[in-house]
Amino acid sequence: MAIEGSASESRQPRIRLGMVGGGSGAFIGAVHRIAARLDDHYELVAGALSSSPEKAEQSARELGLDPSRSYGSFKEMAIREAKLKNGIEAVAIVTPNHVHYEAAREFLKRGIHVICDKPLTSTLADARKLKKLAEESDALFVLTHNYTGYPMVRQAREMVASGELGAIRLVQMEYPQDWLTEDIESSGQKQAAWRTDPTKSGAGGSTGDIGTHAYNLGCFVSGLELEELSADLDSFVPGRRLDDNAHVMMRFREKDGVRAKGTLWCSQVAPGHENGLKVRVYGTKGGLEWVQADPNYLWYTPFGEPKRLITRNGAGSGPAAARVSRVPSGHPEGYLEGFANIYSEAARAIYARRSGTAVDPAVTYPTVDDGLKGMLFVDACVQSSKRNGAWVKV
Amino acid sequence: MAIEGSASESRQPRIRLGMVGGGSGAFIGAVHRIAARLDDHYELVAGALSSSPEKAEQSARELGLDPSRSYGSFKEMAIREAKLKNGIEAVAIVTPNHVHYEAAREFLKRGIHVICDKPLTSTLADARKLKKLAEESDALFVLTHNYTGYPMVRQAREMVASGELGAIRLVQMEYPQDWLTEDIESSGQKQAAWRTDPTKSGAGGSTGDIGTHAYNLGCFVSGLELEELSADLDSFVPGRRLDDNAHVMMRFREKDGVRAKGTLWCSQVAPGHENGLKVRVYGTKGGLEWVQADPNYLWYTPFGEPKRLITRNGAGSGPAAARVSRVPSGHPEGYLEGFANIYSEAARAIYARRSGTAVDPAVTYPTVDDGLKGMLFVDACVQSSKRNGAWVKV
Amino acid sequence: MAIEGSASESRQPRIRLGMVGGGSGAFIGAVHRIAARLDDHYELVAGALSSSPEKAEQSARELGLDPSRSYGSFKEMAIREAKLKNGIEAVAIVTPNHVHYEAAREFLKRGIHVICDKPLTSTLADARKLKKLAEESDALFVLTHNYTGYPMVRQAREMVASGELGAIRLVQMEYPQDWLTEDIESSGQKQAAWRTDPTKSGAGGSTGDIGTHAYNLGCFVSGLELEELSADLDSFVPGRRLDDNAHVMMRFREKDGVRAKGTLWCSQVAPGHENGLKVRVYGTKGGLEWVQADPNYLWYTPFGEPKRLITRNGAGSGPAAARVSRVPSGHPEGYLEGFANIYSEAARAIYARRSGTAVDPAVTYPTVDDGLKGMLFVDACVQSSKRNGAWVKV
Amino acid sequence: MAIEGSASESRQPRIRLGMVGGGSGAFIGAVHRIAARLDDHYELVAGALSSSPEKAEQSARELGLDPSRSYGSFKEMAIREAKLKNGIEAVAIVTPNHVHYEAAREFLKRGIHVICDKPLTSTLADARKLKKLAEESDALFVLTHNYTGYPMVRQAREMVASGELGAIRLVQMEYPQDWLTEDIESSGQKQAAWRTDPTKSGAGGSTGDIGTHAYNLGCFVSGLELEELSADLDSFVPGRRLDDNAHVMMRFREKDGVRAKGTLWCSQVAPGHENGLKVRVYGTKGGLEWVQADPNYLWYTPFGEPKRLITRNGAGSGPAAARVSRVPSGHPEGYLEGFANIYSEAARAIYARRSGTAVDPAVTYPTVDDGLKGMLFVDACVQSSKRNGAWVKV
Repeated sequence: MAIEGSASESRQPRIRLGMVGGGSGAFIGAVHRIAARLDDHYELVAGALSSSPEKAEQSARELGLDPSRSYGSFKEMAIREAKLKNGIEAVAIVTPNHVHYEAAREFLKRGIHVICDKPLTSTLADARKLKKLAEESDALFVLTHNYTGYPMVRQAREMVASGELGAIRLVQMEYPQDWLTEDIESSGQKQAAWRTDPTKSGAGGSTGDIGTHAYNLGCFVSGLELEELSADLDSFVPGRRLDDNAHVMMRFREKDGVRAKGTLWCSQVAPGHENGLKVRVYGTKGGLEWVQADPNYLWYTPFGEPKRLITRNGAGSGPAAARVSRVPSGHPEGYLEGFANIYSEAARAIYARRSGTAVDPAVTYPTVDDGLKGMLFVDACVQSSKRNGAWVKV
Repeated sequence: MAIEGSASESRQPRIRLGMVGGGSGAFIGAVHRIAARLDDHYELVAGALSSSPEKAEQSARELGLDPSRSYGSFKEMAIREAKLKNGIEAVAIVTPNHVHYEAAREFLKRGIHVICDKPLTSTLADARKLKKLAEESDALFVLTHNYTGYPMVRQAREMVASGELGAIRLVQMEYPQDWLTEDIESSGQKQAAWRTDPTKSGAGGSTGDIGTHAYNLGCFVSGLELEELSADLDSFVPGRRLDDNAHVMMRFREKDGVRAKGTLWCSQVAPGHENGLKVRVYGTKGGLEWVQADPNYLWYTPFGEPKRLITRNGAGSGPAAARVSRVPSGHPEGYLEGFANIYSEAARAIYARRSGTAVDPAVTYPTVDDGLKGMLFVDACVQSSKRNGAWVKV
Repeated sequence: MAIEGSASESRQPRIRLGMVGGGSGAFIGAVHRIAARLDDHYELVAGALSSSPEKAEQSARELGLDPSRSYGSFKEMAIREAKLKNGIEAVAIVTPNHVHYEAAREFLKRGIHVICDKPLTSTLADARKLKKLAEESDALFVLTHNYTGYPMVRQAREMVASGELGAIRLVQMEYPQDWLTEDIESSGQKQAAWRTDPTKSGAGGSTGDIGTHAYNLGCFVSGLELEELSADLDSFVPGRRLDDNAHVMMRFREKDGVRAKGTLWCSQVAPGHENGLKVRVYGTKGGLEWVQADPNYLWYTPFGEPKRLITRNGAGSGPAAARVSRVPSGHPEGYLEGFANIYSEAARAIYARRSGTAVDPAVTYPTVDDGLKGMLFVDACVQSSKRNGAWVKV
Repeated sequence: MAIEGSASESRQPRIRLGMVGGGSGAFIGAVHRIAARLDDHYELVAGALSSSPEKAEQSARELGLDPSRSYGSFKEMAIREAKLKNGIEAVAIVTPNHVHYEAAREFLKRGIHVICDKPLTSTLADARKLKKLAEESDALFVLTHNYTGYPMVRQAREMVASGELGAIRLVQMEYPQDWLTEDIESSGQKQAAWRTDPTKSGAGGSTGDIGTHAYNLGCFVSGLELEELSADLDSFVPGRRLDDNAHVMMRFREKDGVRAKGTLWCSQVAPGHENGLKVRVYGTKGGLEWVQADPNYLWYTPFGEPKRLITRNGAGSGPAAARVSRVPSGHPEGYLEGFANIYSEAARAIYARRSGTAVDPAVTYPTVDDGLKGMLFVDACVQSSKRNGAWVKV
């Protein structure tokens, strides 16, 4: 291996971490734990792992937690851990969406940093309240919009920011999937059931679940702010209560003298797509394309020159990617590494809080603002679609 | 080579062909001549190759035409050739758009088959008149919407028609290019100049030039009819008078109990794209993807099974592709072969007319109806965009 | 379309062409005729299309030949056409391999240019005699090693020749197919039957049929000369009499102070490959990769920089490719266009002979020398394999 | 996410792990630690992290080890930890190659499981001794031939083993890199310096460093045993003392009535390749292709059917891949996950030893036998090349 990765392991005492949700069998809880472990910045020491006391206790035992720090509720955990000498410094919230707000509140108000799964909340009202709380708290609020942790997404953002693409004119986002092509929610498939249930997921179906990811990524890379959108939402599967496909046209705020445009397509009924997240950005001087399923590649075309394949940590890949990479070019990093980067960026910010020093300006992670933007995006999509695609300001 | 191509050479006296336009230096004229020659169904015997008499004469000489059959105007050619014993049976019209209507009229009314470059005309009014003329004439009218000639496009259409994808829900079309990223029309680049000039191109810029191709292809493959659209058109390059980028949301007429949706993106300002025409179709049972730059491949995913790569004349490729292929799988055919297929399909129809027999029902080529649909699409895009994306019926 | 293709149509009286072989149903005959027609440099006026008089006559009629110029044998054709005032100027020989030598002899000695299908002959002895004849004749001898006609192969060769890759160290060639994975020759599949019959194909099976193509291409692009090889040949299908798979290690003559090496793999028993011809060249300054199935792309990596995708007639593609291209970048050209380029290059050389002028030095086509090299390659493979892979000089 | 990953977290007390080598700045040490952490089966509790006492101590501090368990030498660590009540159960050896044998010996003879970086040793003699030791020890010996940990490699092996490809005829392996295209060892690049130094790397350069990986993978997937090989090794960079490119022809032992063949190409001087490891396997019924840089994909062609793209945990992917996967299809896993799979497989075997139960037969990891095979492969390559490519039995 010619070039070494640059992401380093922890060189500070590990951050004491608690977890709300994530008991046995919860997929996303396991992902958060791997992400927290990967770079060794965190140690899981406490948990309110399930709303079922029995399951909470069993899960804690399986994860090797000290039984005295396995709690029956997140509130109990927040109260007691805040008083412990070596209580948790941060908490990961990986519950269903509608619990996010209340759980986050308990920890934020006690100065415990919150790392929260997306989407931010299940309602826009909760999202606004959470934003206010996060702003008032001394603690950090980190949202795991994990795709922004991929090194080549960082590279893309850096190239746009440094002007390599000129003024941005177009942002094309898509996130097609196929797993809801048929009605699997009626027969009780768990993942499908809650995602198609408005009481659990909120107003957006595909828009909330995956459209927000594509939207977040498009804004993250392009550096643009959405001004208004026109949307056409559908539920193609008979009886489905939330959108399973959305077409969105977008207009961004003027920047560099250009009012950029874009489209977003998200779908859960497009056979042949697993997690087909893709973002393409075009400016006056060049274009970029990134595909989540092949995340170590970034296609870059300086206008009038041959297309170039930039690889993670390879030639043409710069420091923004290198600082969140672990292994040399040609050895792929994937979804878990990108997710871990959010945790490790959070750790760097937490270390700075601990020591009272400034955070390295390169540290980047999604915040409550990104979460609220996602909620506003879903709301605007739903409103626009109800009004037959009228343009709605966000 | 294991499997032989099945497209055969002419086994009938060649069709006597004239050409309007296509003098020296005209790119598309040369393409039409190659397309006519490829399968040896035509012999070019007459021409009104340029509106400039000198250039017409010189071009005719270069192409080896009998000087007595090089004409100063299409009208003169139509009149005289119609009277000759062995006068032309068909004419290729490859002039700028605004000449199409008048030229076609002269030949159609004399019973001479017309093979006309796209778009149909420069105005919607002309398009409607031409449709009427074509319907009244005994002669055939063939529009060279050439992408429908690609074998794997035929294969895709056949798979949709036979129900392999189930009921179609989504059609995603795009045709990005980058050649107009900068203002090259002002400095006199010929291709750019007329394409950005409303007096020569009509009301649509990118929508007319390439959007119509994507739209035609989406309908051809899916078998759907557009009902209404909402469009957002832009001219990103300052001073440009026609759209160079368009975002379109579409709703198709109900079919198989489903009202399908789709989007279309066409652009001439997307760096990194040469002729990025792509069409994707998704139904209740599967999905398809075809990319013009790699035309010998068709990606097909039966829902719940691994994605399959169907190759032209390879395993999984059927008779609809084979009858318009020439060489075995693994040896690529390209743009000219696809274009030639339109000419050869026209030849099969002309042979049938000659002999008074029925045309093989497999023979497929774009007609005046397709041309009119394209004009209506452009018109609807322009109207919708002027009304801030209001839905417009087509 | 932004950039126009540059390959122009004939601007001289067409070359009068005869054909030996290529009667009804012969695939390769049809390919040669398309190739001859594509750029309109040739007119087929005579033929000895089959060794069966009836089939010859019928084929001539179908192709619209003047019956007086349909001959019962190539010898008769050569004798008579040489005497005609407007007799053929060139002849295409598309018979089985063992007829090549005798047919070519009759035309070469009468000053008629020969365009001959590959391989050169069925035996090495015939190949040496044919080389001698071709050298003594005033007429041209052109071998249709068609892959050298692909524009991006020309581009690759030009880049190597101009030093962009530095001194060449490695040439990796492969040509896997899968059509002979099972014994289809026993059940009479025609293409398989003669290709696996040593009396018709000569000493090489896959080596002769496709290995020679890969070898020719590797040398064409790299500009290197083979010095010696070590080969391991197999007939994996029980009962097959000729090799259906070959592994070859190669050492090239020293050039630029480097003695380059390479490998060649050809196979007819590799499921998943149609015509998987690929060549990769690596030098001290960069690397190239070209794949026949995607011929409009050339991958180029200047050492230490990102990989670049050069497209035919696109950015980074130079005059060597442009002069054998017809359509703009982004519109693919394929196998037939590459084949036609050999015919059109031959036409340029024939025009020069006609006019007594020098041939444009850019004109490039495979000659009898390339044919002999291919025969020597096969012979060396067979000898080496018989001697358990001993190194054999070529 | 529709389908959940199935690799589970530890449900047993973590395995107490020590490490030899891997002090600050050692890339591969960090990789091993991530791999050990990822699934939470191990806890690093002791180390002899560097031969320099100062660096060892500092590294231990940075990693948060108890100072009393940071040792000055591996021997000291082995002796003391073996006596501790909660001493290490396993040790990771990540030193330069020539230390592997002696370090492994100290732990094996004390019943401490060894997880050793590849290659096994620096000399064939040491490799043979180590094999003997490992066989005599009660402890496990695990070699981190990490590529065998990729889920789709497991999938490929499973498909071959279950007969989906029929009898295997061909195995094509390659591992090109470009990082040693120029002489960077002379200027002191550390990774290059030891890899091109025979006293540190042993007799093989590219053959030992990467050729062994390709060879191991080819055998792992195909299930074949190498019988003999013919090799041509080079040092293209002037002054380089070990091979930087190798061409190898192989013959495998007869299986299913077929004596399969193959080739292996490894190179460190092939511009454009980062870690271009690729393996292709062809049998009487189908073919497979896997590429390390895109590890979540497996290309499979059942003979006579379209090529299929099997994705990790997607349709067509079976239990052999699922049991070593963590996230759903469409979310890529990479190099670290594959590496972690070796550690987690080892953990499953260690858990079984702890409890005295049988190991799940699905558990698969590379052993000392694989290590010895790699050493024998390198030795045979060197011997064959010295004898001008003579076939050498292995």
